[in-house]
Amino acid sequence: MERVVIVGTGLIGASVGLALKAAGCKAQIAGFDASLEESLRAQEAGAIDVVVASRKAAMEAAQEAELVLLATPVLPILDWMQMLSSACGEHTLITDVGSTKLEITRAAAALYEEPGRASFLPGHPMAGKESGGAALAEAALFRGAMWLFTPVKRELPERSLAVLRHAPLVSERATNLEAEWRGWVEKMGARTMDMDAARHDELLAWVSHLPQMLSTALAALLEERFGEAPEIAAIGGRALRETTRLGASPYSMWRDVAMTNTAAVAETLLALEQELAHVRENLRTPELREEFLKANRFRARRGLKG
Amino acid sequence: MERVVIVGTGLIGASVGLALKAAGCKAQIAGFDASLEESLRAQEAGAIDVVVASRKAAMEAAQEAELVLLATPVLPILDWMQMLSSACGEHTLITDVGSTKLEITRAAAALYEEPGRASFLPGHPMAGKESGGAALAEAALFRGAMWLFTPVKRELPERSLAVLRHAPLVSERATNLEAEWRGWVEKMGARTMDMDAARHDELLAWVSHLPQMLSTALAALLEERFGEAPEIAAIGGRALRETTRLGASPYSMWRDVAMTNTAAVAETLLALEQELAHVRENLRTPELREEFLKANRFRARRGLKG
Repeated sequence: MERVVIVGTGLIGASVGLALKAAGCKAQIAGFDASLEESLRAQEAGAIDVVVASRKAAMEAAQEAELVLLATPVLPILDWMQMLSSACGEHTLITDVGSTKLEITRAAAALYEEPGRASFLPGHPMAGKESGGAALAEAALFRGAMWLFTPVKRELPERSLAVLRHAPLVSERATNLEAEWRGWVEKMGARTMDMDAARHDELLAWVSHLPQMLSTALAALLEERFGEAPEIAAIGGRALRETTRLGASPYSMWRDVAMTNTAAVAETLLALEQELAHVRENLRTPELREEFLKANRFRARRGLKG
Repeated sequence: MERVVIVGTGLIGASVGLALKAAGCKAQIAGFDASLEESLRAQEAGAIDVVVASRKAAMEAAQEAELVLLATPVLPILDWMQMLSSACGEHTLITDVGSTKLEITRAAAALYEEPGRASFLPGHPMAGKESGGAALAEAALFRGAMWLFTPVKRELPERSLAVLRHAPLVSERATNLEAEWRGWVEKMGARTMDMDAARHDELLAWVSHLPQMLSTALAALLEERFGEAPEIAAIGGRALRETTRLGASPYSMWRDVAMTNTAAVAETLLALEQELAHVRENLRTPELREEFLKANRFRARRGLKG
């Protein structure tokens, strides 16, 4: 891996640059961002060596690179996948850090699973902050974090099996590149796990997208209800602070999640609405105790602390 | 203030004992708890000087005391208010730390606003932990916290006004005791604020009870949905950890809140259900942006950080 291109040098993209360098990666890292300021900031932070100033130049750099990391929101990732699929050859591995994986993994199967083309490894590091931007990037962002992969499933028609023995669809080159990238991810301090893309999106809806929407809804509701009233700040304690913390996240970071995981997120929201109604209807019945006991078990079982 | 009785030597009661001593209070502090073990633990921690082993002995100690602090859940506070109202005289101030204030303040008006009786000052320190118990008590628990009071409103019939000038309903003694207690609360490091009891319960429903029910409902839902499945712990990050943290709270700490603030809590739950439905129906529309902007404003306006 001698040339790396990072497309999207915000919090995650710039942190990957910093983490790669901290882990000893000697590759030249070029960075492109839709905002030139953001890529200049990433360069200042030492996350990228070279600023690529235009989409066209980024395409050219990607053609030469062994690794292209797509670190934008999901919809632009899908655009870049389209543009890069015909431009890059099999000496290149393209990977991404998009928050939802089903649409990306489907696009990868459609666009990249052809001889002579680059290979594509969908990925998702479970790391982030409420706000984005290269200014907040850290080499240690992925330390101890889970980095999920949802590899494209290669379902071959039966008649291909004989052929496969002689000419595997996935070249040795691609296999090596993928192994090298997984190695770097681990050197950045992350643990890795492979899972099915649909399962990824379903699980993430529960553990990430639902908590976000919930926190946003609660903060929005309190804003509607209390506006300028001073008492909330005066008496609101840790419970309020924590449950509304994610409400500080900007729409720009979540729009594409809502767009590309709509059904799964809607299912979790509906389930929570029903659970809240159940609590509401049982504030004075023994059912409330059952609800607390289940919640206690969830926390105890996971060993979740603090 | 030479003799203090703390009824309920759990987290809050024992922390008040420790905080009073740390603030230089020389009064002898006697403690009673429905669990003898808990009062012994409070004594070991140095929160109380004397363990009172029975309800009867606690009643007797309360008769002699200048200050009685009721630090049990709300329903037992209401029981103790009943028992103490005829037993204690006007040399005693009774106060409490109950999480809801409307029922307690109404009971105080009915039971204590009579000449010769003890005076009652309803209070509520905004401090706590997910778990209770004297073992977790800390002298610093109230430092920087808000300690709310919901004083009984003395609405006098017009004809009493003339009498009042000569024989005020509230004795000078009671006024002095209340001022002394408020002074200790501030010496414990708390800020204080007076508010109407109904407003207290409404506000607390929003900033405390709703976040609790929400966190419990989310954790219970995830427990139902995923049970033993290992992926949740593997991929669940800070968002999940924070939004379910309060799910560790035991039912015993919340039963009485649900019982004594049912209507206000139900109103907040219903409003949140509707807000979540609104988010769910607008995952792909510009309304979602409005929701995020409102939530962002809430966080920015309050200067809530971390």
